[in-house]
Amino acid sequence: MPEPIDFYFDFSSPYSYLLSEKIDALAARFGRTVRWRPILLGAVFKATGSAPLTLQHSPKAAYSVLDFDRSARFMGLPYRHPDVFPIASQYAARACYWLEEHQPTAARPFAQAVFRALFVDNTDISPLDTVLEIAARCGVDRDTLAAAVQSPEMKARLKDEVDAAITLGVFGAPYILIDGQPFFGADRLPQIEHWLQTGGF
Amino acid sequence: MPEPIDFYFDFSSPYSYLLSEKIDALAARFGRTVRWRPILLGAVFKATGSAPLTLQHSPKAAYSVLDFDRSARFMGLPYRHPDVFPIASQYAARACYWLEEHQPTAARPFAQAVFRALFVDNTDISPLDTVLEIAARCGVDRDTLAAAVQSPEMKARLKDEVDAAITLGVFGAPYILIDGQPFFGADRLPQIEHWLQTGGF
Repeated sequence: MPEPIDFYFDFSSPYSYLLSEKIDALAARFGRTVRWRPILLGAVFKATGSAPLTLQHSPKAAYSVLDFDRSARFMGLPYRHPDVFPIASQYAARACYWLEEHQPTAARPFAQAVFRALFVDNTDISPLDTVLEIAARCGVDRDTLAAAVQSPEMKARLKDEVDAAITLGVFGAPYILIDGQPFFGADRLPQIEHWLQTGGF
Repeated sequence: MPEPIDFYFDFSSPYSYLLSEKIDALAARFGRTVRWRPILLGAVFKATGSAPLTLQHSPKAAYSVLDFDRSARFMGLPYRHPDVFPIASQYAARACYWLEEHQPTAARPFAQAVFRALFVDNTDISPLDTVLEIAARCGVDRDTLAAAVQSPEMKARLKDEVDAAITLGVFGAPYILIDGQPFFGADRLPQIEHWLQTGGF
């Protein structure tokens, strides 16, 4: 059984959303599973000295918004650039790790629902209540999850995951690791496919 | 006759090299020509407040070098990361504009030879002598070109081209403009092809 693919992402990253809609099915074609690993780009950028695409106050920011939209159309995915952007994603990220451990069948539906809420339905997913509402629709008990995502344990867990990602060299999102080989960006999907097909090229 | 495609690039940019090997043939399939427009990324980065990929002293720099090489293999192109990198490219850029005007048949062979010297043969193309040597192999008179690329006129011409690119919103390279639609990065080649095929999507 080959090793799972690691998928590092931030729920507030448009290109992460685009890749999230493709990576599981692609991996499955090659007998692989995917470990979804939410991180916080704010902490990553602080550690690596970079800046988010849309906060650079440069022509690159305007291009990025155009490219999010065009790339989504190119990939056959719906996209609506959120009015509130970028946003904080720590509640969703902690919920994701907690669900993986305690209610794994709800973890992926929850994560996909969060991405789609933000990038299709223009819903700000930063408030705790919104995260709980999305989770509830996936069959998760609101009160249990509310306590979990505000617990010192889950705060520490997310911090540890982000620190571990930074130590591994993750400098942005989406960032994919396949058997140690890094791929950065939704636009590396064709290379990821070719890598899985050929076992490395 | 459809408008030419504008291809903004820096001779010292690896992804520009990768795209340069594909863009003319792709455009030709759709009855388009390509205007090659060398720019100086140093001036562009200064104007837009960004930094070259490999000078960021971050894990992104190491990833970039890996990705240059892997992307070249993926695209079926030879690549050898230069020992001296990045390098100054103003002589090559000025020569390119001068040739387009005064010896157009030599312009494209010269530009391609410069890219290949740097990214295949590990030749530092920053010295004037090296640029003249490459041009001579393309049938260009050394002394005439030497005088041209050091003339105030060609210095001003290149500066004007860079300023015009920045005004247009060019923030990096390679940067492609098709009928006003911008595409940034060699990895946008599939989108460029789809755009040319469909007339916009």
